[in-house]
Amino acid sequence: RTMATAARKSLTIGLIPADGIGKEVIPAARTAIEALGSDIPTPKFVDLIAGFETFTRTGVALPEETVEVLKNDCDCALFGSVSSPSKKVVGYSSPIVALRKILDLYANIRPVVSVSPNPNEPSKVDMIVVRENTECLYVKQEQLTVGEHGKEARATRLITERASTRIGKMAFELALARPRKHLTVIHKSNVLSVTDGLFRESIRAIPLQDTRFEAVTVAEQLVDSAVYRLFREPQIYDVMVAPNLYGDILSDAAAALVGSLGVVPSVNAGDEFVMGEPVHGSAPDIFGQGIANPVASIRSAALMLRHLGYIEAAKRIDNAVDSVLREGQLLTPDLGGTAKTREVTEAIAKRI
Amino acid sequence: RTMATAARKSLTIGLIPADGIGKEVIPAARTAIEALGSDIPTPKFVDLIAGFETFTRTGVALPEETVEVLKNDCDCALFGSVSSPSKKVVGYSSPIVALRKILDLYANIRPVVSVSPNPNEPSKVDMIVVRENTECLYVKQEQLTVGEHGKEARATRLITERASTRIGKMAFELALARPRKHLTVIHKSNVLSVTDGLFRESIRAIPLQDTRFEAVTVAEQLVDSAVYRLFREPQIYDVMVAPNLYGDILSDAAAALVGSLGVVPSVNAGDEFVMGEPVHGSAPDIFGQGIANPVASIRSAALMLRHLGYIEAAKRIDNAVDSVLREGQLLTPDLGGTAKTREVTEAIAKRI
Ligand SMILES: CC(C)[C@H](C(=O)O)[C@@H](O)C(=O)O
Ligand SMILES: CC(C)[C@H](C(=O)O)[C@@H](O)C(=O)O
Repeated sequence: RTMATAARKSLTIGLIPADGIGKEVIPAARTAIEALGSDIPTPKFVDLIAGFETFTRTGVALPEETVEVLKNDCDCALFGSVSSPSKKVVGYSSPIVALRKILDLYANIRPVVSVSPNPNEPSKVDMIVVRENTECLYVKQEQLTVGEHGKEARATRLITERASTRIGKMAFELALARPRKHLTVIHKSNVLSVTDGLFRESIRAIPLQDTRFEAVTVAEQLVDSAVYRLFREPQIYDVMVAPNLYGDILSDAAAALVGSLGVVPSVNAGDEFVMGEPVHGSAPDIFGQGIANPVASIRSAALMLRHLGYIEAAKRIDNAVDSVLREGQLLTPDLGGTAKTREVTEAIAKRI
Repeated sequence: RTMATAARKSLTIGLIPADGIGKEVIPAARTAIEALGSDIPTPKFVDLIAGFETFTRTGVALPEETVEVLKNDCDCALFGSVSSPSKKVVGYSSPIVALRKILDLYANIRPVVSVSPNPNEPSKVDMIVVRENTECLYVKQEQLTVGEHGKEARATRLITERASTRIGKMAFELALARPRKHLTVIHKSNVLSVTDGLFRESIRAIPLQDTRFEAVTVAEQLVDSAVYRLFREPQIYDVMVAPNLYGDILSDAAAALVGSLGVVPSVNAGDEFVMGEPVHGSAPDIFGQGIANPVASIRSAALMLRHLGYIEAAKRIDNAVDSVLREGQLLTPDLGGTAKTREVTEAIAKRI
C-alpha cells in the first residue's frame, strides 16, 4: 500500500484548508511536517482553494486549477473541512466528495485510537474504520419528480463488486498487519440484500483468492447493531470495513469513544495519491477563536506520510502528539482544556 | 394520535413473537397486559406466525393469514423480533419491513428514557426517535447487473413530500406535548441534497401550515454528527425525526445510553393501526436460556396502549417497570444482573 519513495528529492504537498476551522488546523499540520527536518524529503507546500466560501466567492466549490495542481504537481495533500450550507444552494456540491472521486481515492482510512495514561499500556480503544469512498449514496445520482401526492425524490445507492473488492483488500491488508488480525464487515443485508449482499459477498470472497488473508478472522455486524456495540464493547473491533455512508456514521460514532472528533485523523487513499483529512467538520461555532484542536490534522499528516512510506517520520509525529495528550497540560476546549490551537501545535512541534 | 376507544368492549391483540428471543419476550408482554385487569377492555390474544423460522418451515416469511387476521380481527399487535439469515437466502424478505408497509404503519416511535435512581429526579436521557417507517432504502427496489468490471448493484432511496410531511407532523405533535418542545431534524443534505433536501424542507414547512407548531423549536443535525453528539451531549435532544435508515441507526445508538437495547420499546403507528415492537433483535446468542430482558417488550405494550388512548393503563405498566429497574434487585444479564425473563416479568406483573 505504500508508494515508492526512493527517488523523491522533495515532497510536494497540496494544502486545501477550505472552510471554517480547516483554516486553523491545516497550518498546524504544516508546522508539524516542517518540524520533521531531514526525516522526509524537503517539503514544498502549495496553497490551494476549495469549499463553500470559494463557491460563494467564485461560483465554483472545487476550482479546476486545484484539481490540476493536485494531479500534476503534488505528491500528496491535506484537506481541512467544508461548511455545509444551511439551506439548499443551487449549483453547490461538496468539494471533498468530488475530490475523492476525481482522484479515485477509494479508501477512507480512519484509525480511532485512545491514548493510554501510561505509554506501556495498550490503548483501550484501538480500531480502524475502513470506509469505501467512491460509491454508495455518494454517487449523488438524485432525481426529483412531482407525483400525485406532491414531490418525490429518488437517490441511487451504487455498490459494485470492483469497489467492494478493492476496499475489502485494503481492509484485509490492514487487518493482517495488526496483532489481532480481526475484520468486521459492516452491512445491512437484512434489508439491502442485493447491494449490501454484494458488498458482503465480495469481501467474503477475497481470502479465497489470496490465501494470505486466511489468517484474518472475519466477523459481520449489521450497521445498527454495530453502532450499538461500538459503545458497549468497543474492544470487539479491530478493523472494520463499511460502505461509504455507514463508514461515515461509524467513524463519527467511534470518535466519541476517544474524547473528541478533534483527535481523529483520516487519509483518503488511492493507488496513485493520498490525501490526509481530519474527520471533524468546519465547526462554524468555534471558528475564528483560535481554539480548534489541531491534533486530528496533525495526525492526518502523520497518516499521510505513513502511507507514502515515511514510517519513522509518522511515528515521530504520533509520539509527540501522544506525549502532549498524555501529559494533559495543553488541551483544547473539546478535550476539557483551555489551550489555544497555537499552543498545542507549538508543544507538539517542539517534541517532534 | 389516539384512536377512538369509547366503543370497545374487548381489545383484540395480535401476538407475533417471530424468531429467537421474540418468543420469550412477547409472552412477557402478554403477562403484563393481563395484569392490568379492568383498566382496559378485556384483552383477547391471537397467536400469529411470521419470521425466518416460519420461512424455513413454510417457504413464506409473512403468511397471508397473519396479515388478514391483523387487518380484519385485531385492534393492535405486538411483534417480537426476526432473525436475519447469515447467508443470502433466495425468496426471503424481512416480515417486519413488509408489515410496516402493508399496514401503513408510517411512524416508528422509539422513546429512549433512562430510569433515574430517585423517582422525583428527571431522567438523564429522555428523548424520542421518530423514524419514518415506509420508505428511504426500505422500499427495497434493488437491481443487479453485470458490467465490464463485474457485478453492479443499485438500490433506490425514495423520499416523498407526503411521507416526510406526515412523519414530520407526528414528530411536531410529540414535541409539542413535551416540556421542552424541541425537535431535531436528522438528515445528510450536504450529500443527498435532493432526497434529504426534500425531507428537511417538508418538515420545515409544517409550522407554516399549522401555527400551533410555532411553539416548537426546530434544530437540525447531519446524521454522522448527530450520532457523535448523541454520545457526547445526549441532553441536547428531545424529539428527533429521521428518515428510515438514519432512524434505525440512531435508535440503536441511543439505546446504548440507557444501559441496554433490552429496555427500549417502540411502536409502529399508522392512522388505523398500531403495533408494539421491542427495538432489540432476535439475539440468537442468548435465545433459549430464558434470560432475555422482557422490559423492551413490556414497555412496547405500554406504548401501544398509550397510543390507543389507554393512558392510565400504560402508566401503570411503566411505573411497575421503573420500580423494578430502580430497585435493581432483579435485572437480566444485559443490565448486569442474573435474573431470568420469568422472574423479571413476574415482579413487574405483581407491581402492575
Ligand atoms: C462533509 C461530508 C460530505 C463528509 C462525508 O460525509 O463524507 C464528512 O462528513 C466526512 O466524514 O468526511
Ligand atoms: C430487522 C430489521 C429489518 C429492522 C430494521 O432495520 O428496521 C430492525 O433493525 C429494527 O430496527 O426494527
